[in-house]
Amino acid sequence: MAGSSVLTSRADDFPRWYQDVLAKAELADNGPVRGTMVIRPYGFAIWERMQAEIDQRIKSLGVSNAYFPLFIPESFLHKEAEHVEGFSPELAVVTHGGGKKLEEPVVVRPTSETVVNWYFAKWIQGHRDLPMLLNQWANVVRWELRPRLFLRTTEFLWQEGHTAHATASEARSFALRVLGDVYRDFMVEVLAIPVLTGRKTALERFAGAETTWTCEAMMGDGKALQMGTSHELGQNFARAFDITFLDETGAQSFVWQTSWGSTTRLVGALVMAHGDDAGLRLPPRLAPVQTVVLVVRAEEGTAEAALTLADELAGAGVRVETDVRVDVSFGRRVVDWELKGVPVRVELGPRDLAEGTAVVVRRLRGEKRTVRLREVAGAVRAALEDDQAELLLEATDFRTSRTTACTSVADAVEAAAEGFATLPVEVLGADGEAEANRAGVSVRCLINPDGGPPAGEEPGEPQVAVLARAY
Amino acid sequence: MAGSSVLTSRADDFPRWYQDVLAKAELADNGPVRGTMVIRPYGFAIWERMQAEIDQRIKSLGVSNAYFPLFIPESFLHKEAEHVEGFSPELAVVTHGGGKKLEEPVVVRPTSETVVNWYFAKWIQGHRDLPMLLNQWANVVRWELRPRLFLRTTEFLWQEGHTAHATASEARSFALRVLGDVYRDFMVEVLAIPVLTGRKTALERFAGAETTWTCEAMMGDGKALQMGTSHELGQNFARAFDITFLDETGAQSFVWQTSWGSTTRLVGALVMAHGDDAGLRLPPRLAPVQTVVLVVRAEEGTAEAALTLADELAGAGVRVETDVRVDVSFGRRVVDWELKGVPVRVELGPRDLAEGTAVVVRRLRGEKRTVRLREVAGAVRAALEDDQAELLLEATDFRTSRTTACTSVADAVEAAAEGFATLPVEVLGADGEAEANRAGVSVRCLINPDGGPPAGEEPGEPQVAVLARAY
Repeated sequence: MAGSSVLTSRADDFPRWYQDVLAKAELADNGPVRGTMVIRPYGFAIWERMQAEIDQRIKSLGVSNAYFPLFIPESFLHKEAEHVEGFSPELAVVTHGGGKKLEEPVVVRPTSETVVNWYFAKWIQGHRDLPMLLNQWANVVRWELRPRLFLRTTEFLWQEGHTAHATASEARSFALRVLGDVYRDFMVEVLAIPVLTGRKTALERFAGAETTWTCEAMMGDGKALQMGTSHELGQNFARAFDITFLDETGAQSFVWQTSWGSTTRLVGALVMAHGDDAGLRLPPRLAPVQTVVLVVRAEEGTAEAALTLADELAGAGVRVETDVRVDVSFGRRVVDWELKGVPVRVELGPRDLAEGTAVVVRRLRGEKRTVRLREVAGAVRAALEDDQAELLLEATDFRTSRTTACTSVADAVEAAAEGFATLPVEVLGADGEAEANRAGVSVRCLINPDGGPPAGEEPGEPQVAVLARAY
Repeated sequence: MAGSSVLTSRADDFPRWYQDVLAKAELADNGPVRGTMVIRPYGFAIWERMQAEIDQRIKSLGVSNAYFPLFIPESFLHKEAEHVEGFSPELAVVTHGGGKKLEEPVVVRPTSETVVNWYFAKWIQGHRDLPMLLNQWANVVRWELRPRLFLRTTEFLWQEGHTAHATASEARSFALRVLGDVYRDFMVEVLAIPVLTGRKTALERFAGAETTWTCEAMMGDGKALQMGTSHELGQNFARAFDITFLDETGAQSFVWQTSWGSTTRLVGALVMAHGDDAGLRLPPRLAPVQTVVLVVRAEEGTAEAALTLADELAGAGVRVETDVRVDVSFGRRVVDWELKGVPVRVELGPRDLAEGTAVVVRRLRGEKRTVRLREVAGAVRAALEDDQAELLLEATDFRTSRTTACTSVADAVEAAAEGFATLPVEVLGADGEAEANRAGVSVRCLINPDGGPPAGEEPGEPQVAVLARAY
C-alpha cells in the first residue's frame, strides 16, 4: 500500500507504529508538562464527532448537561473513604492562588463525584426531584507516571455522568442503559469496534463504587482496552454527603446513585483497533471527512469540476473535502489521505474529466473503480455503507480468532499473550486473579457467555472471566 | 406580571435582582471554592446554544478547533514581558502532583497564548503553513477577588482563538473579521444585544497585544459589559517564541498574530441586557426552549393533545417542551416559565380543547391570543420572529436613551452614572482617562462615529471615546 513506507509496521513494533500514526496523521503531540497532550485539529475533529454521537445518546436518556468547578476543596475527597484512597496518589494540588498561599489547598478534579454530590444534597429534597440525571464534558487530571498519548495522560477530556435515583433497581437499570444504549451502541454502531460488556472484579472496581460495568475491546495487537465504565455507587456517596429525599410515604431515605465516563482514550482505541500499516482507517459514520475529492494535477477545469463534485457529495449528505493542492505531488497527497484514514478518495484527472468519469478508491480494500461522474455520489455512499459494516466484521473476526477458551489460570495467562482468554469464574477462583496479575495479565471483566447483559435488563450472575494484557 | 413577586425588582436593587434571577431560574450556583461556579442545566443549555452559534461562525472563517493543555510551565509565561506582568497576580499554581513536590511549578492556564505559540513555532515552517487558524473551547482560571456569577469567576469557560499570518495587514483584517463576523454578528443577530465595536485604549489593552478590539454592550442598569475581545498581537509572541517562516522569496520572517475570546460571561450579559422583574427574557434564536406547551390541569385528553401539539411545533422547527406537571399549580408553573424567559407559552385547558383552540402567550408583551389548534404553529413562529426583532429594538432604544454626548471629562463622568457618555478623543486627551478612572468610570472603547469598523475593513483613526461604569 502507498503509505507503508512512512510508518513503522504494526508487526515490527506496535507501540512505535501507534506513535508514528499519531505524529504523521497529525492527531496529537506531547504537552510541555510531562504527561499532558496537545490534541491537534484532525485529532480534535475526531473527538468532536465522538462527542456529538455520545452526547446525543446521553441526552436521549433524559440526561442534562451541566458544569461543575475544576477546583475541589481537599476535604471533599476525604468524605468517602475508598474514593480518597483510590485517587490520592494521582492528585494535582493547587497551593497558591492570586499570589498568596491558600488556607486550604484545592485539588484539580480527578473526577467529580464529590463536588457533584455536594450539590445533589442541596438540590434533592423530595421524590419529585428524582431521578436527577446530569452529565458534564470536562477536563480532569490524574497524575500519570507512564503516560501514553490518548491512552493515559495526566490531563484528559471526558464526559462524566452522575445520577441519583429513588431505588437500587432504578439505579442499576440506569447504569446498564448507559452501558448498553450509550456506550456499547456508540462503540459498535459508530466506531465499528466490537466490545464485551461485563462486570469488573472487586480489584478493578472504581474507588467508591459497589459495581463497575465496563466495555472492553481488543486492539490490533491483541491487548485489551477499557473503553468506558458505568458504576453503581449504591448509597456510598449519599451517606458521605447526606443526600436524602422524602419518599411518597413521607419517609426520609438516601438516594441510590450511578456515575459513568468515557474519555479521549477512545481516539487511541480507534487508531489501535482499525489502523493498518498505511495509517488510520476511520469508520465512515465517525469520520470527520468521509470523502476527499482529489485533483490529480493542475489542468484547465479540473479544480472547478472537483468543487462541483464535492458540492454534489455534500448535497447527498457526505462529509467531503476537496484537495486541489496541485503544487504538492499527487503521490504524497494520497499517502497523506491514507494516513488520515479517510474512507473514500475520489480522484479526478484530466483524462477522467475528458471521459466524464472519476476514480473512486476505497481506503479499506485499496479497490479502485472508474465511475461516471453522475454516479459518483451513489458509489461513494455505497462504499461508505459497506466500509462501516466491513470494519466491524473484520474487528469481530480478529477478536474471535484471538480469543481462547481456557480451563486453567496458567492456560489463560499463556493465551493472553495473543489476545483474550476466557475462563469459567469458578475456575478463576479467589486466588486466580492475583496469580494472573503477577504475570501481567488482568481480569478485564466477568461476562455472561452471550457477551454481557442486554441494555437495561437485569443481568444474571456472570459465569465467565475474560483475561488479557491491557493498556 | 405574574412573576414579579418572586424577585427583587430591578429598580430597587439591580445586583440583588441579578442574583435572584440566577438562583430562581436555576442558572448557576456558587462553587465550594471561592470564586468558582456551578452552571446548572438550564444555564448550561443557554451556554451550549451560545457555543453552537459561535462555533459555527468561527469555523466559517476556516478556523479549526484543537485542544492545548491546562497546565503551563511557569517559565513559559515569562517569555513575554507584558503578558507575565498582566497575568502573574491572577495565577493558580500547582506545586504538588502525584504525591510529590514538582521540580518546576505549573500554572493553570489563565489564557493560552504561551503554550499555543510554543507549538506554532514547531508547526510553522514555510508560507504554505500560513495562515494557521486555531480555536479551543476550554476552562481557564484567573484568581478573582471580587467574584460575581458569570461576570467574574475564578474559573470560567470560553473559546480562545489563536492565529498566525504572513503579514500585519492580514492579521489585522482577520482580527476585525472575528470582531465583526463572529462576535458582533452573534451578539446582534442571536443575542439581540446591540454592541459597540471599537478599539481599547493602551490602559485597557490585553497584556501582550498591540491593539485590542472589543464589543461593548449596555446592561439594564446602564453599566457597560465587555462582551468579547479580538487582539492584534503584532510580532510580540512571535519574537518571544521564535515563530518564523520562510516567505516566498526565501527570507525568514516572524509571523503576525491575533488572539480573541468570548466567555460564559455572555450568559450574564443575556440576563442583564434583557431581563425584567419577572425574570429572564430570552431572544428566540438563542432560547434552548422557544416554546412550552402547558397543560392547565388534569383532564381527559389534554396531556395527549399537548403532546400532539408539541410534536407539530417540533416538526415546524420550534424547540419545544411540554409541561404536563398537573400536580403543581398552574400559576406556579407560569411563574416558573416566565422566570426562565421562554419566549412563548401555549396554554391548553379543557375548555380550549373542547373548542379546538389554545391560548398563545408572549413572554415579551404578556399578550394573550386564543388561536385555533391548527394555527398554533404559525402563530408561534410569527411570535418568535417578532420577539427577536423587538428585543433588539428595545435594547437599542434603551441604549440610545441612556447615551449622552459630552464635551468635557467632568460631564462624561457625570453622564456615566446613567449610561454611556461619548466624548471626542481629543477632548479626552492624555489625562482624561486617568481622571475618569479615579471617578470609577472607564473608557470602554474608541469608536468611529458610525459605531465601529465594518467587519474586515480597515478602520480609520477613532474619533470618539465611549465612557461608562463597567462590570
